[in-house]
Amino acid sequence: MPNTTKNWQHVASTKKLSLFSLIPLAWRLRESDIPPVSRLKDVTTFIARFLSPLEQQITTATVSVILENIQSFNWSAAEVTRAFCHRAALAHQLVNCLSEICFVEAEWRAEELDAILRTSGRPVGPLHGLPMSLKDRFHIKGLDSSCGYVSWLGIPKNGDDEGILVKNLRQAGAIVIAKTNVPMSMLIGETTNNIVGSTVNPFNKFLTAGGASGGEAALLALKGSPIGWGSDIAGSIRIPCAFNNIYGLRPSFGRISATGLADNLPGLPIAASVIGPMCTDLTSLVQLMRWLINCNAWQDDWKVVDMPWRDSVFTNTRNRIGQPGQSNGSLVFAVMKNDGEVNPHPPIQRALSMVTTALLAQGYEVIDWSPSSHSFATDVLFQILGSTAGQSVREAVKASGEPPIPQLADLFTNNEGTSLPTCEFWKLCSWREQFQQRYHDYWKSTRERTICRRVVDGVILPAAPHVAPPEGSFKYYAYSAIPNVLDYTTGVVPVTFADRFKDHAELDYVPISDKDRVNWRLYDKDLFDGSPVGVQIMGQRFQEEKVLAMMGAVRDALQQYQPM
Amino acid sequence: MPNTTKNWQHVASTKKLSLFSLIPLAWRLRESDIPPVSRLKDVTTFIARFLSPLEQQITTATVSVILENIQSFNWSAAEVTRAFCHRAALAHQLVNCLSEICFVEAEWRAEELDAILRTSGRPVGPLHGLPMSLKDRFHIKGLDSSCGYVSWLGIPKNGDDEGILVKNLRQAGAIVIAKTNVPMSMLIGETTNNIVGSTVNPFNKFLTAGGASGGEAALLALKGSPIGWGSDIAGSIRIPCAFNNIYGLRPSFGRISATGLADNLPGLPIAASVIGPMCTDLTSLVQLMRWLINCNAWQDDWKVVDMPWRDSVFTNTRNRIGQPGQSNGSLVFAVMKNDGEVNPHPPIQRALSMVTTALLAQGYEVIDWSPSSHSFATDVLFQILGSTAGQSVREAVKASGEPPIPQLADLFTNNEGTSLPTCEFWKLCSWREQFQQRYHDYWKSTRERTICRRVVDGVILPAAPHVAPPEGSFKYYAYSAIPNVLDYTTGVVPVTFADRFKDHAELDYVPISDKDRVNWRLYDKDLFDGSPVGVQIMGQRFQEEKVLAMMGAVRDALQQYQPM
Repeated sequence: MPNTTKNWQHVASTKKLSLFSLIPLAWRLRESDIPPVSRLKDVTTFIARFLSPLEQQITTATVSVILENIQSFNWSAAEVTRAFCHRAALAHQLVNCLSEICFVEAEWRAEELDAILRTSGRPVGPLHGLPMSLKDRFHIKGLDSSCGYVSWLGIPKNGDDEGILVKNLRQAGAIVIAKTNVPMSMLIGETTNNIVGSTVNPFNKFLTAGGASGGEAALLALKGSPIGWGSDIAGSIRIPCAFNNIYGLRPSFGRISATGLADNLPGLPIAASVIGPMCTDLTSLVQLMRWLINCNAWQDDWKVVDMPWRDSVFTNTRNRIGQPGQSNGSLVFAVMKNDGEVNPHPPIQRALSMVTTALLAQGYEVIDWSPSSHSFATDVLFQILGSTAGQSVREAVKASGEPPIPQLADLFTNNEGTSLPTCEFWKLCSWREQFQQRYHDYWKSTRERTICRRVVDGVILPAAPHVAPPEGSFKYYAYSAIPNVLDYTTGVVPVTFADRFKDHAELDYVPISDKDRVNWRLYDKDLFDGSPVGVQIMGQRFQEEKVLAMMGAVRDALQQYQPM
Repeated sequence: MPNTTKNWQHVASTKKLSLFSLIPLAWRLRESDIPPVSRLKDVTTFIARFLSPLEQQITTATVSVILENIQSFNWSAAEVTRAFCHRAALAHQLVNCLSEICFVEAEWRAEELDAILRTSGRPVGPLHGLPMSLKDRFHIKGLDSSCGYVSWLGIPKNGDDEGILVKNLRQAGAIVIAKTNVPMSMLIGETTNNIVGSTVNPFNKFLTAGGASGGEAALLALKGSPIGWGSDIAGSIRIPCAFNNIYGLRPSFGRISATGLADNLPGLPIAASVIGPMCTDLTSLVQLMRWLINCNAWQDDWKVVDMPWRDSVFTNTRNRIGQPGQSNGSLVFAVMKNDGEVNPHPPIQRALSMVTTALLAQGYEVIDWSPSSHSFATDVLFQILGSTAGQSVREAVKASGEPPIPQLADLFTNNEGTSLPTCEFWKLCSWREQFQQRYHDYWKSTRERTICRRVVDGVILPAAPHVAPPEGSFKYYAYSAIPNVLDYTTGVVPVTFADRFKDHAELDYVPISDKDRVNWRLYDKDLFDGSPVGVQIMGQRFQEEKVLAMMGAVRDALQQYQPM
């Protein structure tokens, strides 16, 4: 062992301990409080036993209920904040979901806000007193943004590092209570690193929480925060939302500002990540997106398009509800059952059937969706992201001497690879452009396949070919990565839970490809039992209002639907 | 000489002759009709003597007057088309501005449109019978898109190659009469190639027409077409507009569709070229942009943003007119007199003063504009465009065996260069992003410098540090390239003409840089006499309506302004 106190193990374990030390003693669980996973794998209801009735009431309320209660002096911002901090602290102890904690600062700010409201009678802004959590990569004053790299620890950010979203949140009266765990590099669909370790799935602790915004999704699923913010480059918002029974939105690039973020692909000129909200309640999600878009970030951020929230689009889409027996004027959906390369597991197939049946029962038109090349286009996306051969990722890992997580081992083989020549990079960009246009044409061509002679409004597709898998087994990203290739606005809606009694695998199943064989072998109805299933609703570019409205249509249809 | 009939000289001269053969005999000028340039360098009024009074009336009318006269049966579409074709044929013989001619097809289509209007009483669309010209790179059925490469000749395009703009134009009833000359590669600010040769400036035939949309600007200046379409990657619309006394607009990327174009930088992922309209009349330009944006190309073109024409923005900006003595509420302009690297020549300086004085006299607020790094940012842009070392350009030139034009000689040295590694390319992209944001911040900071405490609405800046120079001397692109680096919507407004009696160079001028020395040596008040001066009006991203309205404000202010 090297004769230094600054080896990576020391730095990492010190961080993990100091994080734990920020949990008040009264909120700490004893080892005996937490049943072993073999006895209790689903902790989503279990967590409530450690909370007072008021804390339970607060932490299960929607955003508007929280805001109303604070403004009418029923709840103080301080007690709301304390309740969520308490629940977040419990969540962390149950599923290991936090990367940074700022409960003390949050409570100070809450008391300050309470004083302002008492004195002036007016809230400081539309989110007065609302607690909030963010994925680790969002810079927050006084906190690290380690993103799972030991070498990025110990560099607390200052106020100038904070991005426009965080500034807007603070001005509106929101209170940051914690940042949430991510995988080393933020480039995989699971959440593990050498600092905090792995975030497990609150519905089934045998499984991963998904990633890269996996800590965020797990925290939200346990209601340790009323709303959170993730980022998405190939599914990092949508995968963990689908795996944790929550709603999430990947907006199109440029609709909202994504400044003030730790970044390990600096300069990536296309297909860059976007940020978006995640929440257990769709109405709260819509409320936050409407507020955020109307913050007019284009004035501060060159990359943001001057496109205010179009309430008419949202309302018109919401009004195109299905009416059983007469589909005239109602929304038209397409459903993608598989992408021709990897078939989704039985729970996903059942979820797609449920959505289809529910939408048809409500009088919506539903057609099938089978464009070509999803899988190949995803390969091209990963070639684009990897065209500098992961150099910045390797540097960040090597700087501390820590080993890469196994999921990144390929980047660290003897043959580490070199940057593509730019002419080859441009060829990838050109292929992507052509794919985008072909896809756009395919979308338009649906006019000829619908009864109403209109083009499809939204596409329902899996977020992954499986529910949350055991850590280390997420391999196939084409379902979540396609909206990134296309920059199409895409949301996730929770549908159901894997069920060992309903989701039988065909005994004589014949895989359609090698990747499909790998995926099919992963299926285990007992292991996956109880794991959430969400589906994606994909719109076109800059259709945030429409996609959010369609998510509502799918949610409502599912609520009406009574499976036999 | 190689024993082949297919050497490049043969291919090129055959094309030039076949182009000329498409001009009807009756419209051909004898050599003796055209005075030598030493006797007549400005042919802009001279051209009219070859036209009938009706042809003169038609070809000097605005778009709306043309459309009204056709729809009220005062003029047939055929006689309008013939008049413009005649004038375009004359223009070509005077300044060598066309690359493709389709007068016969245009007249057929015009007769067809006349028949439809007579029979149905209704125009086929809002541009019924309007002649139109386009830069050579727009694919048109039956015509080549050689873009100044001999190797690209002889590949006539079919209907499927036509882009969305051309399809929209045809559906609206417009009639393509010709395509216009470009420089080999379309990447320089002059217009010359080995096929058609050089397009000269109609106001001063000693000088270039500018480029790359130089043929288009020269044709429009001679009123051989009522409106034309160019493309712009570093000034290719705005340079020739400024050099030829016409209005032009470079929209932001994604505001209008740019499909169906010959392209020699395929896959370029950022800073790609955009298309835009060019016209001697601003009202016609606005009319065409409004129509085009409302064609909703986003439904067909993935790259286009769903942002309809915002008439309220246009009207509100137009209503913020200056009122002498009270600037409250009126627009705020900034003027950039120089970029700190190369000082504009005296005629440009005078034009900037005229605009400033005229705006102030109208009660507008005007501040100075001096952001940093224009010149360096332009170097970065050219490094981005050149990061594949001009490989596709070299291939297109070498395929025929023709020599490169002298302006491209650097690409063909012994050391031809190789593609940058992608990691270096990303560094350039990253630098550009940071520059865009710094510039955006600078813009926002003007709030602290204006009397009205609002940010600047538009920035006035030169289009080049000189008027149209003699061919081969355009070296410094920073004035026109900055809006491309920033993707800011930018228009050009004609201001004045170089005047040997007004535009004296300081005798003891001390150059501020080596590039400035080169530029200053170029100045020759006698040579440049009579050459047009236009200035750029720069807005921010997706501010097409606002920029067009501000162009109107500048035009009106100049019309009111009486220099002492």
